[in-house]
Amino acid sequence: MCFSAAATCTVRKTDYAFEVTNQTVNIKFSVLQDLQNLGAQNVCLMTDKNLSRLAPVKAVLDSLSKTGVRYKVYDNVRVEPTDTSFKEAILFAKNGSFDVFVAVGGGSVIDTCKAANLYASHPDADFLDFVNAPIGKGKPITRALKPLIAVPTTAGTGSETTGVAIFDFEPLKAKTGIASRAIRPTLGIVDPVHTLSMPERVAANSGFDVLCHALESYTALPYNQRTPCPHDPIARPAYQGSNPISDVWSRHALHMVAKYMKRAVRDPEDLEARSSMHLASVFAGIGFGNAGVHLCHGMSYPISGNVKTHSAKGYSVEHPLVPHGLSVVLTSPAVFSFTAPMCPERHLEAAEILGADMRQVKRQDAGAVLADTLRHFLFDLQVEDGLGAVGYSKDDIPALVKGTIPQERVTRLCPREHTEDDLSQLFEASMKIY
Amino acid sequence: MCFSAAATCTVRKTDYAFEVTNQTVNIKFSVLQDLQNLGAQNVCLMTDKNLSRLAPVKAVLDSLSKTGVRYKVYDNVRVEPTDTSFKEAILFAKNGSFDVFVAVGGGSVIDTCKAANLYASHPDADFLDFVNAPIGKGKPITRALKPLIAVPTTAGTGSETTGVAIFDFEPLKAKTGIASRAIRPTLGIVDPVHTLSMPERVAANSGFDVLCHALESYTALPYNQRTPCPHDPIARPAYQGSNPISDVWSRHALHMVAKYMKRAVRDPEDLEARSSMHLASVFAGIGFGNAGVHLCHGMSYPISGNVKTHSAKGYSVEHPLVPHGLSVVLTSPAVFSFTAPMCPERHLEAAEILGADMRQVKRQDAGAVLADTLRHFLFDLQVEDGLGAVGYSKDDIPALVKGTIPQERVTRLCPREHTEDDLSQLFEASMKIY
Repeated sequence: MCFSAAATCTVRKTDYAFEVTNQTVNIKFSVLQDLQNLGAQNVCLMTDKNLSRLAPVKAVLDSLSKTGVRYKVYDNVRVEPTDTSFKEAILFAKNGSFDVFVAVGGGSVIDTCKAANLYASHPDADFLDFVNAPIGKGKPITRALKPLIAVPTTAGTGSETTGVAIFDFEPLKAKTGIASRAIRPTLGIVDPVHTLSMPERVAANSGFDVLCHALESYTALPYNQRTPCPHDPIARPAYQGSNPISDVWSRHALHMVAKYMKRAVRDPEDLEARSSMHLASVFAGIGFGNAGVHLCHGMSYPISGNVKTHSAKGYSVEHPLVPHGLSVVLTSPAVFSFTAPMCPERHLEAAEILGADMRQVKRQDAGAVLADTLRHFLFDLQVEDGLGAVGYSKDDIPALVKGTIPQERVTRLCPREHTEDDLSQLFEASMKIY
Repeated sequence: MCFSAAATCTVRKTDYAFEVTNQTVNIKFSVLQDLQNLGAQNVCLMTDKNLSRLAPVKAVLDSLSKTGVRYKVYDNVRVEPTDTSFKEAILFAKNGSFDVFVAVGGGSVIDTCKAANLYASHPDADFLDFVNAPIGKGKPITRALKPLIAVPTTAGTGSETTGVAIFDFEPLKAKTGIASRAIRPTLGIVDPVHTLSMPERVAANSGFDVLCHALESYTALPYNQRTPCPHDPIARPAYQGSNPISDVWSRHALHMVAKYMKRAVRDPEDLEARSSMHLASVFAGIGFGNAGVHLCHGMSYPISGNVKTHSAKGYSVEHPLVPHGLSVVLTSPAVFSFTAPMCPERHLEAAEILGADMRQVKRQDAGAVLADTLRHFLFDLQVEDGLGAVGYSKDDIPALVKGTIPQERVTRLCPREHTEDDLSQLFEASMKIY
C-alpha cells in the first residue's frame, strides 16, 4: 500500500466508511474547501507552540487568510494536557464564539480542541460534568457541538477517529478523560506528509500507541460478554468490547504495524512506511474507538501522571514527561501474559502477525510467546528497559495501582478479572523488560 | 465468528464504524427504542407482499403497536423494482407525511424506500432529476431526508450500507439508479435470524451479489487514477475507486464468502454460516459503497432488464426474473479474465482466497486462474450454465451491449478501458460457463 506524497485521506464522520479522495490535494486546498462547505465564518485553530511554526499550521493559516474568513489561533495546547490546560483552552473557545474548530497536531491538540468545543457549546456546565465517572459525573452530552476538523500530525492516538479526550487530572495525579460519540471530529484530514517531520522517538512512541490500540482492542472483552446491558441503544458506552467490526480494523492495523513500524521509525524519509503508519493509526483508532482498550492503557495513565524527572528525548517540552505511547507499551509484555489464558487464539494470532515463529507453539504458551515477541520488538526499537528506566521503583507501585483504580472505563474491558494484587504484580513485572 | 441467534448488529450512519450491540435484543426491542430515540410520530413501514406475512415484519408491527405511534404499511414493493413501482411507493410516501421510514426486506424493499423517502422530501422534483446521468439528470440532493431504518432480510445487496437505489427503467429496458450519500439509511439492523427463512436459491443468488461486490470493488480502478478530479470534496461521486479503506472491507468480505457461502446455501439451519454471510453482505456493502463496482454489475443490468421468460426458482414472483445476484455472477469468469492484466496481483490474491491452488501459478495466469476458480465455485453451487441457460442467445448481444452503455456510473470504474466490441465478446464468452 503506497501513497503518493500528496495523497490525502479524508475521514468523514457522517459516512459509514472513510472517504479517500482521488485528488492529489494538499492540506490548504482541503481545509479551505471543507471550511467553505461547513459555512465557516469564525474559525478557531488550535495547535501547540512547537507546531505553530511548522508547515501544517502554516498551510492552514495561509488557507484561512485566502478565504477571508475570520479566525483566531490558540497555540498554547500542553503536550499531555491537564485539567488546567484544558480549562484555559475552554475559556479561549468560550470567549471566541467560534462556529468551526480546526485542530492541527497530535492527540494532545485534538483532545484539547474536543474539550474546548464541548464546553463552549455547554457554557453553563461544570468541568467535571462530562468527565468520566468515577472522577467526574459522566453526564450524557445532549446539545450539538460545532464542527471540528482534525488534522493529525503524529501517527499514534487515532484521536481524529474517536470520541475520547484524555487529560491529567492534577488533584488525583491520574489521567482520565471525556468519552462520548458527540465529541468525535466531524472530519479528519489524514495526510502522510505531516508525519515526515516527526523525530525518531516521537515516531516510535506514537507507533507503540497504535500497536497497543490494536492489541488491546483485539483482546478486549467480547461485546456479548460486557455487562450491564443497556436498555436503550442510546445508553451504550463508547467502548463496547471486541466485536466483528472492530476486529477487522484491529487486526489490519496490527498487520500494518508489523510490516512498517520499524522502517517508519528508523527512516523519516521512508514515505511508504510513514504513510502506512499514519493510516494504521487511523485504522487502529476505528478499532479501539469502537471496542475499547484495557490494561496497558488503564495502567499507563498513572505512569504518565506520576512522572518524576524523566525527560523524553525528541519532545520539545520543558516539563518531565513519559510520552503516552511509551507509558502504554512498557507494561505490554506483562499484560498480555496475564490476559492470554482468556483468549489464547487471539494472542497467538497477534504473535504470529508480529513475526513469531509458531512452529511447535502450544495453546498454553500464548501469553509467553506474545510477551517474548513484544520484548524483541521493543528491544529492536531501543525502548527504555521498563518502568525502572523511566524513574520508577518498587516503592511507587502502590501509587501506580491507586492511579489505575479510577480507570474503570477501560480496565473493565480487560478480558480477565483482576484484583489490586494482580495490578501490583503487573507493575512489578514491568519494572524491567529485557 | 459465531453469533448467538439473537445477537444483533446495528449499523449507524453517524459513526465511523458500525456499532455492535452487546444486547441479546430481538428486532422488536431494537426498532422500538430506535424509533423512540428518533422521536417518531408517524412511521412508514415498507416491505413486499411475501415478507408482510413473515416474522420480521410481524415483529416490527408488534413493536409499532406497543409504542402507540401512528404508522402505515406499504407492502406493494416490487421484487426488482421499476420506475413505475418506485413512483407508486413515492406517491404513498408523499401522501403520508411520514417522519420516519422503516424498510424490512431485501435490496428491492430498501432501495424502494430510499427513493420514496427522497422524493417525499423533494415533492416538486421530477422523477428523473435525481436519477443517474445519462438516463436522468443526476442533480445533487440538497434537502435533508427523513430518518430511514433498514432491516435487511437477505444477505446480498448491502443496501443498508449504501447510498444507492437501483431500478429497471422500463422505457430503455435497462437498470439504472439513484446514487447519493444523502439517501443512505440512518441505521441498519442486521439480525442473522432474518436470513434463516431465505430459500436455497435466494441464499445462493444474494451470496453471488456479495461475491461480486467484493471482487469488483477490490479490482476497481484505484482511487488515485479516477478522473475527472473534482474541485471540491462535496462533488465527489459515491463510487470513488478502490482505496486503502474499501480494500480492507472487500478483502475481508471475500474471505467470509470463501469460508461460509457454500454452507449457508446448503443448510438454512447453519446459523453460523448464515450469520457470517449476512455480515459479509454488510462488509462488502461498505467496501463497494465506497469504491464502486464495475463490469459484472454494469453488464448485469441489461441481463435482468431484458429478461424474457426465465422464471427464478425460490422467488415468489409472478413475472419473469433473472435475480440480481445471478445476473451479476454469470459474466464474472469472463470479466475477471478481461480485467486481470491491469492488476494481476489482486486477481491472484482473490483466487487464492477462494481456494485456488497457487503453486506454480504465474502472474500472467491471473485471469485464467481466477476465472477457473469462479467456474468451480459456481458449478458447486449449481448455477445455471451461463446466459444461454437463462434465455439469451447470440442474437441478444447487441441489445445487452446497448443496455450496458448507459451504466457509465459503474463501468467507468473498470480498471481496463473497453469498447463495445469488448463488451460483445464478454457477453458472448458468458453464454456458456462450464
